[in-house]
Amino acid sequence: MILSKFNPFRGSLLHIRRASSWQSTGLRYKEFGDPDKVLAIETESIPQTLSEGDVALKFLAAPINPADINTVQGVYGVKPKLPWVAGNEGTAEVLSVGSAVKNVKCGDRVIMSTDTPGTWQTHAVVPATQVLKIPNDVPFWAAATLAINPCTAFRMLYDYAALRKGDVIIQNGANSAVGQLVIQFAAANDWQTINIIRDRPDKEATLSHLKSLGGTHNITDADLQDRKLLGSLPKAKLGLNCVGGKAVSDMTKLLTNQAQLVTYGGMSKQPLLVPTTALIFKDIVLRGFWIGAWCRDSSTEERIEMLNNVVQLMKDAKVRPPKMEAIGMKDYKEAIKKTQEGFCGKKYLLVLDEQIMDQVRKELQ
Amino acid sequence: MILSKFNPFRGSLLHIRRASSWQSTGLRYKEFGDPDKVLAIETESIPQTLSEGDVALKFLAAPINPADINTVQGVYGVKPKLPWVAGNEGTAEVLSVGSAVKNVKCGDRVIMSTDTPGTWQTHAVVPATQVLKIPNDVPFWAAATLAINPCTAFRMLYDYAALRKGDVIIQNGANSAVGQLVIQFAAANDWQTINIIRDRPDKEATLSHLKSLGGTHNITDADLQDRKLLGSLPKAKLGLNCVGGKAVSDMTKLLTNQAQLVTYGGMSKQPLLVPTTALIFKDIVLRGFWIGAWCRDSSTEERIEMLNNVVQLMKDAKVRPPKMEAIGMKDYKEAIKKTQEGFCGKKYLLVLDEQIMDQVRKELQ
Repeated sequence: MILSKFNPFRGSLLHIRRASSWQSTGLRYKEFGDPDKVLAIETESIPQTLSEGDVALKFLAAPINPADINTVQGVYGVKPKLPWVAGNEGTAEVLSVGSAVKNVKCGDRVIMSTDTPGTWQTHAVVPATQVLKIPNDVPFWAAATLAINPCTAFRMLYDYAALRKGDVIIQNGANSAVGQLVIQFAAANDWQTINIIRDRPDKEATLSHLKSLGGTHNITDADLQDRKLLGSLPKAKLGLNCVGGKAVSDMTKLLTNQAQLVTYGGMSKQPLLVPTTALIFKDIVLRGFWIGAWCRDSSTEERIEMLNNVVQLMKDAKVRPPKMEAIGMKDYKEAIKKTQEGFCGKKYLLVLDEQIMDQVRKELQ
Repeated sequence: MILSKFNPFRGSLLHIRRASSWQSTGLRYKEFGDPDKVLAIETESIPQTLSEGDVALKFLAAPINPADINTVQGVYGVKPKLPWVAGNEGTAEVLSVGSAVKNVKCGDRVIMSTDTPGTWQTHAVVPATQVLKIPNDVPFWAAATLAINPCTAFRMLYDYAALRKGDVIIQNGANSAVGQLVIQFAAANDWQTINIIRDRPDKEATLSHLKSLGGTHNITDADLQDRKLLGSLPKAKLGLNCVGGKAVSDMTKLLTNQAQLVTYGGMSKQPLLVPTTALIFKDIVLRGFWIGAWCRDSSTEERIEMLNNVVQLMKDAKVRPPKMEAIGMKDYKEAIKKTQEGFCGKKYLLVLDEQIMDQVRKELQ
C-alpha cells in the first residue's frame, strides 16, 4: 500500500502501541534504480507477538549516507532481496523482547550489529543477535551514526599500520564524515595527518575547519602539483583513499616504502590510478576496507569490543558533531538529492520518532 | 678510453691472463640516457692482486633484459653510481680467489647474489659475498638467466597465495620470459593458468606456444571483452601483472575474493587501473614484487636455498629454453633496439668469451 501523501507524524504513537500490531512506516523499494523514482513511503503491519529470540524496535533516527543511496541504486557491493527498506544504520529503542533474549532489555538503545532490516522506518522486529546495546550517555548524533563511519575510521587506523606517536597518515576526501573522524582520532593519538580535499570555491573555510579538528597538514589536490610543497611534507605510513582516480597516484608520492594504502570509497567513480613503480620499488600494499565485511566476519564479542573502543575513542578525542540537519521522513527526496550532489557540507539525519525531533535538533545545534 | 672500433674478440685471452692486470672490456656508461648514445665499449685494467675477501671473475654470458635497458635510461627503480657497466645478471667463471674466500673456488661457475658490478663485461673483481655458486649441470642458457626471471616466477608463485592442486593463476604478458616460466612451473604443480597476451597479428602461433608449455587457458586481451568466455573461465587466487593500465582492471574480473594481485612489471608504461569495488567488496590485495629487493632483504643462506629450489623446479618442470640468440658484444646496438621494440619473440644473450660462442649457439638451437 503506497501512501505517497501519508504523514507519518500524524496521530499518536501511543495509539499505535495499543493495537495488536505495530504500524511500521518506512521508505521501501521494490526495484533498484533512481531513489527519486523507486523509493516510496509505505506502511506495513508487524504482529506484536514475538518469537523467543526476537526483539521489537522503534527506530529513533538514521542518517542518509552515500552508501544508502548506492544500495537503492543497486550499485553497492551488496544487494538486498527486494522489496526492502532503505537505510543501513541508525539508533533504535527496544520496545519488547522475546522470552529467550538476554543481550538487551526493554528501553535499551541499540544499533544494528550486522544485517539490518533497513533503518529508514519506524518499527521492525529482528533477531536479538542483530542488535548491539549502546551506552545511554552517547550523544544522539553519535549513536545514530556510530555503526559505519566511526567504526570504519577506527579499524582503518588501528588494523593496517602499527602507528607510533608522530607517525603520519595521508587521506583524500578529508572532509568526508570518515575523514573528519580520522583527523580527530589521529590528533588524540598524536599522529600527524596530511588531509587532502578537492579544489573548490570555499576551500579556505574547509581547510580551516579541518585544521580546527586537529589536522596537521591541510591541502587541496591542486597543491599536490606544487613540488616545493610536496618536498616539505612528511611521508605517511598509512594512506586512506575514498576518491579514486588520479587522487591515488598523487597520494603515492607522499607514502613511505612499505606503506599501506587502504581504499574505503570511490567518490570520483574512477578506477584508482596506481603507478607501477609505487608497487614494485616502494613496495606499497593496496587493500580495501568495508565495515560490512568486517562485521560479517567477526564474532558478537569482537563487535561489542569494537563499539566500546570506538565510544571511548570518541570521548577521548572529544569528537565534535559533524554538521547535521534533522529532517522528517517526508523530506527525504530533497535530502537524498543534496547528498548525491556532494559538497553540501552536511549530513541529513532522518528523525523517525516525531516526539524527539526537538531534542535532536537542539543537540545538533 | 673509448674504443668504439675495438674488437673484444681479437687476440687471445691467455695473453691477457699472463699480464699483471686483467683487461676488462665492457659496455660502460657515464650518464643515463638513450643506450644507443650513452653506452660505449671500453677497456679497463684490473690489477690481478686480490684483497683477501675478493674473487676475480671472467664473465661468460649475460642476457639483455628490458630492465637492463631501463637502468641505462635512468628510469629503473635503482640508479647505479656512474660511471658504471650495464647488465644485471649473467654467468661468470671464478678466475682466482682471495686468501679468505671460502664459498667459491677457482673454476666454479657463479651468478651474482645481490649487487652486481655490471655483467656486460669480460672481467671484474668483486667481494666473494656477491657471488653464488651454481651447479655445473645447469644448462648454459639457464645459468645465465637464473638470477632474475626464474627466481621472480618462483617467489611470486610460492610467496603470495597458498596454492593447491587445481588452483588457478591468471597472468598478463604471459609470453614474457617470466610468463613462460610461470606456465611451466604451474603445470609441474598441477596449478591451472589463465594466460593473457596482447592482441597481435601472430597471436595463434603465440597462444599455441603457450599451450605447448602447459598453459591451461590461453587468450588475448581482446577475448576478455567476450562475456560468455569470461563466464566460462575459472576464478584465480593469484594474479600476476607485468602490463599495467586497463589490463589490470580486466584481470580483476577473473579473481576470487581475497585474491592477491602481484605486479612485477609495467610494459604498457600506464599506471594500473584498479576498480574500487575490487578492493572494497572483493577484498583483493595489490602488491609489487622485485627480485632485487628480495635478495637485498634476504640472507646468503636464503638466497642459496632459493637458487637450489629454482634449479630443482626447473628440472622438475623440464623447463624449455626460451628463444634466445647468442651475440657478440659488438652487436649490442641492434639487440638493444630489438629488445626495446618488444614483440621480437626472443631474448639476446651476450657471449662474453669468444671461445664458448659455438658451444652456446649449439645449446640454444
